[in-house]
Amino acid sequence: MKHTILTGDRPTGPLHLGHYVGSLKHRISLQSQHNQTILIADMQGLTDNGHNPQKIADNIFNVMADYLAVGINPEETTICLQSALPALAELSMYYANLVSVSRLERNPTVKAEIASKGFGASIPAGFLNYPISQAADITAFDATLVPVGEDQLPMLELTNEIVRKLNAVAQQQVLVESKPLLSDVSRLPGVDGKAKMSKSLGNVITFGSSDDEIVKAVRAMYTDPNHIRVSDPGQVEGNVVFTYLDAFHEDKDYVSALKEHYRRGGLGDSKLKGILADCLINLIMPIRVKREMYLSDPAQLKQILKAGTDRANQKSQQVLSRVKTALGLNVF
Amino acid sequence: MKHTILTGDRPTGPLHLGHYVGSLKHRISLQSQHNQTILIADMQGLTDNGHNPQKIADNIFNVMADYLAVGINPEETTICLQSALPALAELSMYYANLVSVSRLERNPTVKAEIASKGFGASIPAGFLNYPISQAADITAFDATLVPVGEDQLPMLELTNEIVRKLNAVAQQQVLVESKPLLSDVSRLPGVDGKAKMSKSLGNVITFGSSDDEIVKAVRAMYTDPNHIRVSDPGQVEGNVVFTYLDAFHEDKDYVSALKEHYRRGGLGDSKLKGILADCLINLIMPIRVKREMYLSDPAQLKQILKAGTDRANQKSQQVLSRVKTALGLNVF
Repeated sequence: MKHTILTGDRPTGPLHLGHYVGSLKHRISLQSQHNQTILIADMQGLTDNGHNPQKIADNIFNVMADYLAVGINPEETTICLQSALPALAELSMYYANLVSVSRLERNPTVKAEIASKGFGASIPAGFLNYPISQAADITAFDATLVPVGEDQLPMLELTNEIVRKLNAVAQQQVLVESKPLLSDVSRLPGVDGKAKMSKSLGNVITFGSSDDEIVKAVRAMYTDPNHIRVSDPGQVEGNVVFTYLDAFHEDKDYVSALKEHYRRGGLGDSKLKGILADCLINLIMPIRVKREMYLSDPAQLKQILKAGTDRANQKSQQVLSRVKTALGLNVF
Repeated sequence: MKHTILTGDRPTGPLHLGHYVGSLKHRISLQSQHNQTILIADMQGLTDNGHNPQKIADNIFNVMADYLAVGINPEETTICLQSALPALAELSMYYANLVSVSRLERNPTVKAEIASKGFGASIPAGFLNYPISQAADITAFDATLVPVGEDQLPMLELTNEIVRKLNAVAQQQVLVESKPLLSDVSRLPGVDGKAKMSKSLGNVITFGSSDDEIVKAVRAMYTDPNHIRVSDPGQVEGNVVFTYLDAFHEDKDYVSALKEHYRRGGLGDSKLKGILADCLINLIMPIRVKREMYLSDPAQLKQILKAGTDRANQKSQQVLSRVKTALGLNVF
């Protein structure tokens, strides 16, 4: 069955290996079978960067180059820019009347994010509203499948609530509900072993990382603190190098053999790290080359993004028109 | 000095004499001297009618016909429809990131309205956000003057706060602040003497009221309960008939003489009410006839609204483009 998939990223920095494992790989495999739209969510990026819009602006084409370099094919996947799709803002306005403030404040995803972002008493209205804007993103493409992590499930539930409310108000089926496509890969830890990979923590490997940077990052990786001599038996669980080998090495049998060797002793951290560094360099080097090629031709990037955004505008304007007609407000 | 004026109405019902005294009369006199835009604020109407959009949709052309019938000249005043101006929704999204939720919750106008509307724990997000959307309305036309009542001053203050914040973030003057144009006419009471004229209270005279309905409404008006016999002295203060005569009778000397006569006794309520009824019929009858003429030709109404909305789209898209450029987000 062919699904309509809506997914995207906030352009708050260049993408990294965590994105590769968590979403990009899946998008590449989904794009040929389904009708996939990827949104560069600059408006959503602004909801907690309202006072630093340059950060968002600067990263739009970084993210675009990352997509193309890793293998997102703009002939198969519609890549589009949120701020250039007016229907999304308009749908958000309609949906905001169907959701209560307290419903937004109860959303566990938003609650956790608010706590972690340290807004204090100054939560931007746009940030509290962003689940409404996400509902607009999803419904504007009639998406039926939305790739999400477990923690994002409450967002999708709110979207479907809005869909049901709007259909009830309009007394007809105007919008379709969507289903989550749960990713089965657990989050990739940072190179420092911290649960969250994040540019601001400096624990990421991006698609722009040089071979030297990759080697350096791998060298600094957390292994087993009790594995002091090469001959000592080592622990595989919680060993970041193995987590990365599991995630990125193509030869699973070889990785199994390495784990066994490491457990019984005789496999040194530096040799192990050399294997991972080679693996990551093999993965990233060709992506980095393509990425630089794309970034060196901003006109081409803009043209590809424009073509996708034009297609996305057509679709989202159709949905907006359907919503306005159903509400009796399609006056002209 | 020529100002740019932004004003408007929520299309929640036909306009009435309260609107005439409070705003329409001023708009008619302002339109030749200033650059005036009147917004039919259907999106804002939805913020507390999200579950009854038909009410809003049904009243757009009622309000439009009221405007034209009372003498708003579409050649001088731009009359436009909020929901057909995408730039307003887009600007709202940008501004929402510069205003905190608690700032919205502290707004005295919104606080009072929330209390009076009985939302309980279910305040629609769109309603809490509507001051942001109003800031978008005002700034999208570079308005410098906004006709408001005293109670609306906090809304305008928030708009100017957003203007200053956006200019600070963009490090340049992108938007202009606006000043209130305070109306010096106190609110017209309902025909029952209640402070608020409201269609739902059934105490209004609309521009569609027939002569009979006007006579009936005036007959039911509150005068002076101690003025029992014609010869009794009567009280003018708090006497709704005199409030209306002050507001609508063109011959102020004649009204003064009536007041004196009423105070000393000898002027009966029924004669007095006859004078007011004649005055209101003289005012409303020609408006009603024009109103019916306009309503009988919906295609013409739509054409006039479309022409104004096209002009308003041009202007508001320019302002949106300026804002996006200043934020670095005018990508295409």
